[in-house]
Amino acid sequence: MPDPSSATQTVAEHNSRDSCWIIVHDKIYDVTEFLDEHPGGSKIILKYAGVDATEAYEPIHPPDAITTNLPIEKHIGAVDPNTIIRTVKQVTEEDRRRQALLDARPPIDEILNFHDFEAVAKTVLPAKAWAYYSSGGDDEITIRENRAAFQRVWFRPRVLRDVSNVDWTTTILGQKSSMPVYISATALGKLGHPDGELNVTRAAAKHGVIQMIPTLASCSFDEIVDAAQPGQPLFLQLYVNRDREITKRYVQHAEKRGVKALFITVDAPQLGRREKDMRMKAVDDSGTAKVQEGQQDVKKDQGVSRAISSFIDPSLSWKDIPWFRSITNMPIILKGVATPEDALLAYDAGVQGIVLSNHGGRQLDTSPSGLENLPPIIAALRTRGPWPNPNFAVFVDGGVRRASDVLKALALGATAVGIGRGFLYAFCAYGQEGVEKAIQILHDEFQMNMRLIGARNLNEIVPEMVDASALHSRVGLSPPDNLYFNTYQPLTTAQFKNKL
Amino acid sequence: MPDPSSATQTVAEHNSRDSCWIIVHDKIYDVTEFLDEHPGGSKIILKYAGVDATEAYEPIHPPDAITTNLPIEKHIGAVDPNTIIRTVKQVTEEDRRRQALLDARPPIDEILNFHDFEAVAKTVLPAKAWAYYSSGGDDEITIRENRAAFQRVWFRPRVLRDVSNVDWTTTILGQKSSMPVYISATALGKLGHPDGELNVTRAAAKHGVIQMIPTLASCSFDEIVDAAQPGQPLFLQLYVNRDREITKRYVQHAEKRGVKALFITVDAPQLGRREKDMRMKAVDDSGTAKVQEGQQDVKKDQGVSRAISSFIDPSLSWKDIPWFRSITNMPIILKGVATPEDALLAYDAGVQGIVLSNHGGRQLDTSPSGLENLPPIIAALRTRGPWPNPNFAVFVDGGVRRASDVLKALALGATAVGIGRGFLYAFCAYGQEGVEKAIQILHDEFQMNMRLIGARNLNEIVPEMVDASALHSRVGLSPPDNLYFNTYQPLTTAQFKNKL
Amino acid sequence: MPDPSSATQTVAEHNSRDSCWIIVHDKIYDVTEFLDEHPGGSKIILKYAGVDATEAYEPIHPPDAITTNLPIEKHIGAVDPNTIIRTVKQVTEEDRRRQALLDARPPIDEILNFHDFEAVAKTVLPAKAWAYYSSGGDDEITIRENRAAFQRVWFRPRVLRDVSNVDWTTTILGQKSSMPVYISATALGKLGHPDGELNVTRAAAKHGVIQMIPTLASCSFDEIVDAAQPGQPLFLQLYVNRDREITKRYVQHAEKRGVKALFITVDAPQLGRREKDMRMKAVDDSGTAKVQEGQQDVKKDQGVSRAISSFIDPSLSWKDIPWFRSITNMPIILKGVATPEDALLAYDAGVQGIVLSNHGGRQLDTSPSGLENLPPIIAALRTRGPWPNPNFAVFVDGGVRRASDVLKALALGATAVGIGRGFLYAFCAYGQEGVEKAIQILHDEFQMNMRLIGARNLNEIVPEMVDASALHSRVGLSPPDNLYFNTYQPLTTAQFKNKL
Amino acid sequence: MPDPSSATQTVAEHNSRDSCWIIVHDKIYDVTEFLDEHPGGSKIILKYAGVDATEAYEPIHPPDAITTNLPIEKHIGAVDPNTIIRTVKQVTEEDRRRQALLDARPPIDEILNFHDFEAVAKTVLPAKAWAYYSSGGDDEITIRENRAAFQRVWFRPRVLRDVSNVDWTTTILGQKSSMPVYISATALGKLGHPDGELNVTRAAAKHGVIQMIPTLASCSFDEIVDAAQPGQPLFLQLYVNRDREITKRYVQHAEKRGVKALFITVDAPQLGRREKDMRMKAVDDSGTAKVQEGQQDVKKDQGVSRAISSFIDPSLSWKDIPWFRSITNMPIILKGVATPEDALLAYDAGVQGIVLSNHGGRQLDTSPSGLENLPPIIAALRTRGPWPNPNFAVFVDGGVRRASDVLKALALGATAVGIGRGFLYAFCAYGQEGVEKAIQILHDEFQMNMRLIGARNLNEIVPEMVDASALHSRVGLSPPDNLYFNTYQPLTTAQFKNKL
Repeated sequence: MPDPSSATQTVAEHNSRDSCWIIVHDKIYDVTEFLDEHPGGSKIILKYAGVDATEAYEPIHPPDAITTNLPIEKHIGAVDPNTIIRTVKQVTEEDRRRQALLDARPPIDEILNFHDFEAVAKTVLPAKAWAYYSSGGDDEITIRENRAAFQRVWFRPRVLRDVSNVDWTTTILGQKSSMPVYISATALGKLGHPDGELNVTRAAAKHGVIQMIPTLASCSFDEIVDAAQPGQPLFLQLYVNRDREITKRYVQHAEKRGVKALFITVDAPQLGRREKDMRMKAVDDSGTAKVQEGQQDVKKDQGVSRAISSFIDPSLSWKDIPWFRSITNMPIILKGVATPEDALLAYDAGVQGIVLSNHGGRQLDTSPSGLENLPPIIAALRTRGPWPNPNFAVFVDGGVRRASDVLKALALGATAVGIGRGFLYAFCAYGQEGVEKAIQILHDEFQMNMRLIGARNLNEIVPEMVDASALHSRVGLSPPDNLYFNTYQPLTTAQFKNKL
Repeated sequence: MPDPSSATQTVAEHNSRDSCWIIVHDKIYDVTEFLDEHPGGSKIILKYAGVDATEAYEPIHPPDAITTNLPIEKHIGAVDPNTIIRTVKQVTEEDRRRQALLDARPPIDEILNFHDFEAVAKTVLPAKAWAYYSSGGDDEITIRENRAAFQRVWFRPRVLRDVSNVDWTTTILGQKSSMPVYISATALGKLGHPDGELNVTRAAAKHGVIQMIPTLASCSFDEIVDAAQPGQPLFLQLYVNRDREITKRYVQHAEKRGVKALFITVDAPQLGRREKDMRMKAVDDSGTAKVQEGQQDVKKDQGVSRAISSFIDPSLSWKDIPWFRSITNMPIILKGVATPEDALLAYDAGVQGIVLSNHGGRQLDTSPSGLENLPPIIAALRTRGPWPNPNFAVFVDGGVRRASDVLKALALGATAVGIGRGFLYAFCAYGQEGVEKAIQILHDEFQMNMRLIGARNLNEIVPEMVDASALHSRVGLSPPDNLYFNTYQPLTTAQFKNKL
Repeated sequence: MPDPSSATQTVAEHNSRDSCWIIVHDKIYDVTEFLDEHPGGSKIILKYAGVDATEAYEPIHPPDAITTNLPIEKHIGAVDPNTIIRTVKQVTEEDRRRQALLDARPPIDEILNFHDFEAVAKTVLPAKAWAYYSSGGDDEITIRENRAAFQRVWFRPRVLRDVSNVDWTTTILGQKSSMPVYISATALGKLGHPDGELNVTRAAAKHGVIQMIPTLASCSFDEIVDAAQPGQPLFLQLYVNRDREITKRYVQHAEKRGVKALFITVDAPQLGRREKDMRMKAVDDSGTAKVQEGQQDVKKDQGVSRAISSFIDPSLSWKDIPWFRSITNMPIILKGVATPEDALLAYDAGVQGIVLSNHGGRQLDTSPSGLENLPPIIAALRTRGPWPNPNFAVFVDGGVRRASDVLKALALGATAVGIGRGFLYAFCAYGQEGVEKAIQILHDEFQMNMRLIGARNLNEIVPEMVDASALHSRVGLSPPDNLYFNTYQPLTTAQFKNKL
Repeated sequence: MPDPSSATQTVAEHNSRDSCWIIVHDKIYDVTEFLDEHPGGSKIILKYAGVDATEAYEPIHPPDAITTNLPIEKHIGAVDPNTIIRTVKQVTEEDRRRQALLDARPPIDEILNFHDFEAVAKTVLPAKAWAYYSSGGDDEITIRENRAAFQRVWFRPRVLRDVSNVDWTTTILGQKSSMPVYISATALGKLGHPDGELNVTRAAAKHGVIQMIPTLASCSFDEIVDAAQPGQPLFLQLYVNRDREITKRYVQHAEKRGVKALFITVDAPQLGRREKDMRMKAVDDSGTAKVQEGQQDVKKDQGVSRAISSFIDPSLSWKDIPWFRSITNMPIILKGVATPEDALLAYDAGVQGIVLSNHGGRQLDTSPSGLENLPPIIAALRTRGPWPNPNFAVFVDGGVRRASDVLKALALGATAVGIGRGFLYAFCAYGQEGVEKAIQILHDEFQMNMRLIGARNLNEIVPEMVDASALHSRVGLSPPDNLYFNTYQPLTTAQFKNKL
C-alpha cells in the first residue's frame, strides 16, 4: 500500500496493459486482471491507466460498483487528494452549447404533457445519454408499437353520472399509492442529471407515488433508500447475477432496509442490440477509427447498453423461483412476461405477480406490447379463478404517456401501470421539479378523464368502458405505389392573393 | 357610488389585489372578491385593476356576463365616458399584418367547400382565436377521427332513376329546415368576427336553416333572438350551472322567447385539456415567464377553454332529467351520448332525442366519432320499436365537411346532422356572407349528390345506399421500418432534359 | 343577312348583352338569347361580342356544336374571311415556356409505362387542360381509390407451364381486338393536342384496338369516323340529351356509319363538382375578381366540366331502355353501373352489358372502384346463369395503368377493360406516336405477365390466379399521434465521413 | 488467322455492321452474325467494332461467355497484346468522385446491420450497377412487400429458460451449415466489386456457410469452385437454356466438381421489366437520343436485365423434371414456387424441395412474398405427411435483413432461408471482409434472438413462438383526404426560447 502523499507517482507507473492501476474517489485499484472482464471493454479503462478515472467512472457506475466487483486484494490503498493531478475540466464548446440550451428551456409552466419532457430532454441531454435512454432493440419496431398500441384502444364513455368527486387512489402490492401508477426502474440516471435517481425518490415521497429502484442505478441502493422519507414505499428491480451469493446479499439487504417488493427481470438473459446506442458509441470514436482489415476480432466498445450486460445471468430459469422464495419474504414479481403460457407458469410457481413488459422496447424487437398481451393473459388467468385476483397482480409498462393510457390498461384488467422513461425524461429536463410536475400532470389527467368516461373510482373502470377490438390489429402496410403518388397532384384550398 | 365625472380617479385608486375595481361599458364593478373565482384567473383582471377593461372583456364575454355573475352590491356605479382614459388602441404591426391578410383573402367566389373557409380562417384569425376554435382534447386523435370516419363510409349509388327533381327539405324536431342540417353551437364567436353569432342568425333566417344558440355565445342570448326574423326557429344549447336556479331562469326565458328545443350538453362535466389552446396561452405570457422553481402551486391561466369551465356542474346526472322536464315544455335533447347503453337510458328517460357527439373532439380523446357510434345505437333503439321513431331523434355532429357526409349519416339512421366549426369558420373568414355561401355550397352538394346516388328525397336515403363495413375499422398502424425506408430508393418517372 | 364583305362592321355593332353576335368559322351567329343558356356562362361569350370567337370556340367545342344547338334562324350569315380582324395571336411568355417544355420532353424511347405519359402530359399541358383532364369529384377519394384497388389484388402465379407462346387477343362485343382492352371515351381532346381524338383513331387502326368515340369529343363524330380505316371497329359513348330526337338522330347516324356498340352513360345525371377544375377557372379570372359582397347570385363560370353539363338529361331512367332498343340494333351497354342490384336490372332489361365505372372518379366521390364492385356483381350475375355469359358483357374501367391490372380484372370475371386517361395523356404528350407507344407497352406487359403467371391465353386467366381477399379492405387510417412522432427520433444507417 | 503482331490493323478494318470483329482478352472474334442475337443489342457491340472490347466485356460477362456462345469458327485468332491500342483508361471526374466516396466509407466496425451495407453500397456503386442490383419488377410493390411481410410476424417470446448455451447450427440438404441461412445466387457480381462472387466463396469457406453459385455469375463457374476450400459445400442456381445439351453439360460438370444441390429457377420464363434498370440504361444514352418518330421498331437496349434474358427457355415445364432427374444425382430444388398447388406438384414430381421466392421482387409484381406463401404451403404439404419432412425441404428467400427474420420463417415451417442481395451489398461495400462481417452480424443476432425468445436450438423454434395472424393482412390504404390534412394544423411540443 503506497504512501498516500506520493501515491500519485506510484500509480502513474502502472499505466499499461501489463499493470494497470487507476484512481477512483481517491482510492487506488489494480484493474490489470479485470481489464478483459470489464463490460465496457478494456480500451476505456486503459485510457485512464495510471491516473485519476473518477470523472469518467462516476456518471456511469454506482459508487460501490468497483468495490463490489473487484476482489479486496486489488484495493491498493488511498491517495492524498491534493496530490492528484486532475484532468482540468475544460469548459468546451459543447458544454457552452448545452448550458445555453438549458437556459433556453421552456418554463416548466409550459410543460403540458409527457411528450414535452421528452422533447426538452432530447435537446438538453448529451447525445450519448439521449442515445442510451431513447434507444430500442434492432429496428425499434417494438418501442414504437408500445405507444401505438394504446391508440388502438378507444373509450366508451358514459354520461350523466354525478362525477363531482372522483378518486383514483389505490394500493399496489399492499402499499398505498396516490394513483394506479408506479415509477418503473431505468438505469444510469446520472447520465441525464447530477442527482440521478434521487430526483425520483424525493418527488415520489412528496406525492405518494412508489419508486422501483433499478439494479443499475447511478446512485447506490443505499443512497436512494437514505433519501427516502420514513415509511415511503419502495420496490426493487433485480438483475440476477451469475454469482447467486451477490444476488442473495443484495436482495436480503434490500428487504432489511424496508423494500416492499422484488421485481425480477426475466426478459433480459442478454441485453438487446440497441443500435442507436451502439452507433453513438461508434461515432464517438470515429475520429480515430479506420477500416482496419483483419482486425475484426478485436473487442469493440458497443455502447452503454453492452457495457452493463455481463452482470446478467442467462441461465436464470423457472428452477430458480423456489430459491428466491427461500431468501426473501417480499412479494416476488416477474418483470417481462409476454405470453399466457408463461403467465400461468408464474401463477402456478406461486409468485405474487407479473409485469407485461418488453423492457421498454429495448430487448426483443417485434415483440408485442404489454398492453396487447394483456387481454389474452387476463383471459388465461381467469382459468385459475375470478379476476381481479387478490393474490396475483398483473402490471403493464411501456409506451404510457397519459393517464388515459393507464385507465385503458386498468379497464382491460391491469392492477397498475409502470412508467419509466416518462419520469426519467422529466428529471433530465427539470430535475426533481420535473418529476413533481409529471406527477401533477397525471393527477390532472386522471381527474379529467375519469369524469369524462363517467367513472368515480377505479372499481368503476370496467372492461365495457373501452373498445379494444382493434388492439390486435397491428397492420402491415402495403408498399405505396410511388409512380402513382409522384404523378398525382394533390388538391389544394383557395389561395390568397399575392400572399408570400 | 362615486360621481361619474370624477369616478375615473376614484376607480384608479382601487388598483390592487386588496381592492380591485374595473370599468366595463362605462360601469364600475368591484371585483376584489371575485378575483379568485374568475375562471380565467386573477392575473388577467389585475392587469386592468383601476382602469377601463372593456376592450379585453368584450370579445370573450357576453355583455351580461358580469352583471349576471357579480352580486348587485358590487355594481358600484357609472363613469362619465368622456373621463375614461381609454387605452389608446394602437395599430400594431400585428394589426397591420392581419388587415393585409384580410385584404388578400380569396374572393368569396373562389370558395368551393368548407375546407376553404377553414383555410382562410386559419390565416386571418388572431392566433389565440384560431387556437381556441381549432383545438381538440389531448392528442387530438378524436378530432381528426371525426373527419376520418366519414371517409370510411362509401356510397352504393343507384342509376337510371329519374332525378330531374330532388328534394332535401325536412323538419327537425317539428321545425321546417331547408336541409337536414342544423348549425350547431360554438362558443365565443366574437373572437373571430365582430358580429359573432349574429352572422349565423341572419344567414340562417335568409336560408331557412336552424341555429342552435350556444350558452357561451359572445353575443347575449337576447341579442341573438332579437336579430332573428319572426318565426325563425332557434334551438338552445345548455351548459347546466351548479346553481340550478340560474339554469331554470335561463331555460324558461329561452322558451318564452320562442326557442324550439333544448340541447343539454352531457359530455362536459369538466372541460377537456385542449393543449393547443393551453400552449397558446402559455406562449402568450412567455415574455415574462420564467422557470420559477417552487412556485408550481400558483394558479396559472390555462387558455380560453379553462377560463369558461367553472360554470359547468360535474354533478349533473340522470336524476336531473325529471327536473328539466318539469321546468320546460321544449323538446329535450341530450347532446354528447356515445354508447347504446346511454342511448337506451335516454330513450327510457323520456327525452326527445340525443346527439351522438364528442363535442367536436374537444373533450375525451380517443372517444369514437358520433358517426361510428351511430349504427350500434340505432340497432339498440330498434329494440324499442321501428326506426325511424317519430318520438325520438338521433343527431350526429363532428367532422362534417360536405353534404355527402350528411347523406351518409342519414343513410345510417340519423335524423339530421349538426355542423358547428364549419359555419364558425365561414363567418370568421367572410362574416354573414360566408355563412350564406356555406349554406349555398351545401345546397349545391345536396342536389348533386342526391342525383348521383339516385335518391329523389330523404326517404330514399336508405341503409343500402352506403357501405359502412369499414366504419369500425379504425386501424392502428404498425410502426414503419425506418432503416428499410431510408435505404430504399423510390422509383421515378421519365425525366425531362435540362429541365430546372 | 349582311353582305359578307361589310359584315365585320355590322357584327361589331352587336357587341352587348342586348344584342350579341359572334363570328365562328367565318359564320355569324346571333347568340343574344342563348347567353343565359350557355353552359359556360354568358361572361365568356360577351368577351367576344361583336368579334371573331373562333379561337376560343375551337378547342372546347366540336365544330358542329354551335350549329346543332342554335336555332337555324339565329344563323345570320357569312363573313368575308379577309375582313375579319382576327386577334393577332401573340406568342406569349407562356407559349414560349410550353414550347421549351415540349422541346425538353423525354425521348419517347424513355417512356416505360403509363405513368410516364401522365408525368409528361402534366408538365406540357396548359394548366387549364391539365386541370380539366386530371380532376376528380369532390375530395378525389374515388379517383385515387380507382388506382389503389388494383394494388389490393395480388397474383397467385403458376410455374413450369410451357409459356413459349402466349396469346392475349380476344373479341369484344363481337369485334376482334389485339388485346382485352378498349380505349374509353374522354372529352375535349383538342385541349391537349391539336389533332384531338384523331390521334387515337389512327393509332387504334394500326394496332387493332377499339376506340370508344366520346359524345363530347373535340373532333366531330364524322371527322373521327372519316379518319378510321375501312372495317375498323368503333364504339360510341352517349350522353342522352333532354331532346330525345337529337339523341335518336345521333345514335342512328352512328349506327349507319358503322359504329358497333352503344355505351350509354348512366352515372352522370349531372356532372360532378370537380374542384380542381373549378378552382383553375376561378384563379384564371382572379386578376379582376374581387370579394363582391351581395353579388353571389351572379352566375359564375365553374370550370370546363360545368360548361358541358347542360346537355345531359337527369330524367334518364330504366323506362328509356325499351326506347333505345327500338331505335338501334347496336349492342347497348350501360356505362356506370355500381351495384349488383342495378347489374341485375340491366341484365333483366335485356341490354348487352355494363361497364363497372365511376366515370374515372369524376362524379360521385367515395363511390367504390369498378374493380371492387366486380366480384359481387359477377356473383349476382351467376344467379342468372353460368359465367362468362355469352349474352352479357361486364367491363371495368378506372385506374388502369398496366396490363397486370387488366389481367386481374379478367381473372375476377371482367370481359375486357377500358382505359381512358392513359391514352389521352399519351397523345397529349406525344400525339399519335404516344398512343402507339402506349399500345406497344401494353403488348409487352401482356406477354411478360401472362408468362409470369403461367397463362397461355385468356381462358387460362382464372379466378384462382388472383388473391382478391383484401380488395374490399379499404382502410380508414387512424389519425397519427403527432406529438409522439415529432418527438421520436428515427434510426439512421451508418454515416460516411465528411460526406457532404 | 491474322498474324498477331499486325492483327490490330486487320481487326480495325472490320469495324462495321457488315463485318464486325472485336478483341476480347487479346483474342479476335468475328461477331458479325451474332450482332442481332446479342441480348444486349447490337449497338453496344458496334461501339467496339474493330477495336479492343475487353474493358466493356469484362464486368458484365463471365470469361467464358464469348467462347461458349460463339461458334468455334468465329474465333479468328490472337493479337499481340503490345499492339493493342487500348482505350487509355482516363481517370474521370466520376472515378474521382467514387474513389472519394470509397475513402469516406464508414469504418467497417460501424456497420451494425444489413441496411448499413446497402446504404454504403448505394453510395459507392456506379449508378448502373446500383440500378441493376436494386431494381424490382414494375412498380416494385413486391420487392418492398418482401421486407414488409417479415414485420407482420411478431414473436411470442418465452422466459425463464436456461439459455446459457444456444445453438443455431444446422444441416441444409445434408450439408453442415453454421446457421440456417445460405447465400443465394445473385448475378453479375463484378459490376459491384472486382472480385465478384469470389468474395462470397472465400468468406463462406471461413465461416461454414453455403454459397449458391449463380448461372449468371461474373466469375466463371470454375473460377468460383477453384476458389473454394476442399469439402466446402456449394449449391448451383440454374437458368435452363433453350439448348438442353448446354444445360446438361453445365449440370453434369457442376456435379462432377462437387456441387451438392441444383436449384432450378422456375419463376423466370422471361426476365421481368425492371424499370429502374431500364431507365438507367435509357438515361445513359440520352445524350444522343432523340424523339425519333417512326423508328419505334429499332431494337433498343433495355438495361442490364434484358441483356441477359435470352438464355432462358420459356418452354420449361413439369415435363422436363424427369429429364433433370435422369442427368444428375444432385438433389433438385425448384426455385420460385408460389402456390400450394405447385408445391404439391413439385412434391409429387419427386424433387427434393422448393424455394418460396419471387426472385427478389424482380419478376412478377404484386406477387406475394415467400414468407406469406409459407403457411398455406406448409399446410398443403402436411397433407402428404408430417412436417418437417426429411425428404422435402422448403426454403424461403426475399426481404431478409436480420436473424430474427430467419427465425420467423423457421417457426412457420421453413427448412432454411436464403439471403442474396444482403451479401451482395456487403461485398460491394467492403469486399470479402464485408461478407464476413455480414455473417458475424447474423451470428450475433442469432445468439441474442434465440436467447430472447427462449429457444436453445432450432428444434425449439416452434410455430407457437410467432404470431403470424397479420401476415396475410396486406392492407390497401384508402387515399388520404388531402384538403383535410392540409388544413389541419398538427400539435407541437413546448418550444425553447430563442432557440434557432
